[in-house]
Amino acid sequence: MTQVIVLNGGSSSGKSGISRCLQAVLPGAWLALGVDTLVDAMPASLREGDTGIGFAPDGEVVVGPEFRALEAAWIAGVAAMARAGARVVVDEVFLGGPDSQERWRAALEGLRVLWVGVRCEAGVAAGREVARGDRIGGMAASQAESVHRGVVYDLEVDTSRAEAMTCARIIAERVAAQAWTV
Amino acid sequence: MTQVIVLNGGSSSGKSGISRCLQAVLPGAWLALGVDTLVDAMPASLREGDTGIGFAPDGEVVVGPEFRALEAAWIAGVAAMARAGARVVVDEVFLGGPDSQERWRAALEGLRVLWVGVRCEAGVAAGREVARGDRIGGMAASQAESVHRGVVYDLEVDTSRAEAMTCARIIAERVAAQAWTV
Amino acid sequence: MTQVIVLNGGSSSGKSGISRCLQAVLPGAWLALGVDTLVDAMPASLREGDTGIGFAPDGEVVVGPEFRALEAAWIAGVAAMARAGARVVVDEVFLGGPDSQERWRAALEGLRVLWVGVRCEAGVAAGREVARGDRIGGMAASQAESVHRGVVYDLEVDTSRAEAMTCARIIAERVAAQAWTV
Amino acid sequence: MTQVIVLNGGSSSGKSGISRCLQAVLPGAWLALGVDTLVDAMPASLREGDTGIGFAPDGEVVVGPEFRALEAAWIAGVAAMARAGARVVVDEVFLGGPDSQERWRAALEGLRVLWVGVRCEAGVAAGREVARGDRIGGMAASQAESVHRGVVYDLEVDTSRAEAMTCARIIAERVAAQAWTV
Repeated sequence: MTQVIVLNGGSSSGKSGISRCLQAVLPGAWLALGVDTLVDAMPASLREGDTGIGFAPDGEVVVGPEFRALEAAWIAGVAAMARAGARVVVDEVFLGGPDSQERWRAALEGLRVLWVGVRCEAGVAAGREVARGDRIGGMAASQAESVHRGVVYDLEVDTSRAEAMTCARIIAERVAAQAWTV
Repeated sequence: MTQVIVLNGGSSSGKSGISRCLQAVLPGAWLALGVDTLVDAMPASLREGDTGIGFAPDGEVVVGPEFRALEAAWIAGVAAMARAGARVVVDEVFLGGPDSQERWRAALEGLRVLWVGVRCEAGVAAGREVARGDRIGGMAASQAESVHRGVVYDLEVDTSRAEAMTCARIIAERVAAQAWTV
Repeated sequence: MTQVIVLNGGSSSGKSGISRCLQAVLPGAWLALGVDTLVDAMPASLREGDTGIGFAPDGEVVVGPEFRALEAAWIAGVAAMARAGARVVVDEVFLGGPDSQERWRAALEGLRVLWVGVRCEAGVAAGREVARGDRIGGMAASQAESVHRGVVYDLEVDTSRAEAMTCARIIAERVAAQAWTV
Repeated sequence: MTQVIVLNGGSSSGKSGISRCLQAVLPGAWLALGVDTLVDAMPASLREGDTGIGFAPDGEVVVGPEFRALEAAWIAGVAAMARAGARVVVDEVFLGGPDSQERWRAALEGLRVLWVGVRCEAGVAAGREVARGDRIGGMAASQAESVHRGVVYDLEVDTSRAEAMTCARIIAERVAAQAWTV
């Protein structure tokens, strides 16, 4: 049975909506954790400035060394939750592309992981960013393609073409299929 | 020139997303106000119980007399804002159908109003309700059809078939066309 | 009977807590509205930039002409709500001191208004700003004194020395006393 | 050097404010995690009903077996974050008193932990619960004493008598003192 589902997609691509739908349609109780959980847990000083996370005027996100250090511990902790028996949906933005994926892959070693790419056309994601009303403009467009470059998935969904619930059902079917064949 | 745009639609139909997009694409500065603003301004005691707003187990919303009294004053105040020169997008749920519309129509007398129906298929809205993760289950499905019954619109959009930004552009075009012809 | 209570105080002085407590202890149902409601209703473009609201690096708030225009209509609308029968607690930050008060006084002409100063020592407010974790640093200290300069009150409370609920009870007693003597 | 600070206190006792202040005054970057983070990560279905978390009409919180299972994995994961090098402030409500503490103590075995009791008089906490405006009434009073019964602390603070920032400085001094003596 799948123990961890990693959703990777750009800002406003619809990851957290899929995550909530997965919690509703998957059998059993799953935790939904993600980069937003981590950022909320960071000190305010790391949400800006050179050592934490910063937002360039065009929406690009820049991450500093102290952010990276806490993130590494966070990833180790989420992996430990899965090893302790929790099933976890991780909602991530691989700003570093394959390097980001490698950090998670190493930490999740030995666990059954489903890697899911959450695609959304840049223009559609940019529109949703405006519709949310509380996001820094430009992040959606800036990340739409870049976070997927070089990343390897078991499955991809596209929220420009399907509702979050539909995407969740596709992912849940794959989880069920894996449960039978393993 | 249009002074007030009233968006009416069920819970999770996407009204507030359209409202935010309208603020971005319409010329000039528009205020975005709605029933959520009003509910947030109510005393906690009116958000439950017999005299305020209540939620039945199936997601149906029940509104009591004290809620109605504050709502009437709220509507009068929003109309006064438009008369004082603000352009306003109102994001509403006409639980009472044509009676609700009549309350707004009477208060907005003499103002140039665009009435917009925000449709969303019940199943799609119910899925989005799950995706949001913080809504009372059942409201979306319960309201999807009922809030439109007997209500008259200048324009209707359907968020099951178009993004919030696309719906906003359609509405903005109508606003621009009215500005020319009046 | 008092129809409008205007609470004026700096950021993190505890106005909104007093407002919520007033809704709980005052007889009847009161609406709680304030500058945060207005800012949330503004277009995203006005929450930054030269024509809207801006935050200087030291936490000072700068307000532009388009913000002022929408604010004037907002104030007129809140006054209209009170004239239409709603009792309203207004939670404000008089960045312009007596000029800000004059704008409200003119709009509330003919209504029975209680003007309340919400004081909080700068150091205490700055600490609470940190404790909230989501505020721009420096606003609390920058506003603690300046928003009261030249403003005239019926009553003042100090949240450095009393809990929000205690302050609310003091205000409610004054409202009750006015109800008897008028 | 202290690796984990566990803050235990009832609802509305001011734990999260102290946690944010600790992040600001402690040397280095600390993660702030707590029971609210866990509850947000749970499926909506576990936030109500027999197997998750429930709220009795008097504000008492009832926790079911599926909640407990995810919580156990969560605690193991937070401990793993600390072992991986993150310093963590944990913001907790020991509904089970000493049993709750024992669950954390076992998981944190081998780590340097500072146990802090966050006291707040029941009446004061109940007032703050009203002031927050979004809490279920009765939780603050119901938990004010019960969560401390049988729990052993290195240090206690009382937010009825001191601001969050003052409490944070007291805790930070103890952390600094321990750094010297160990």
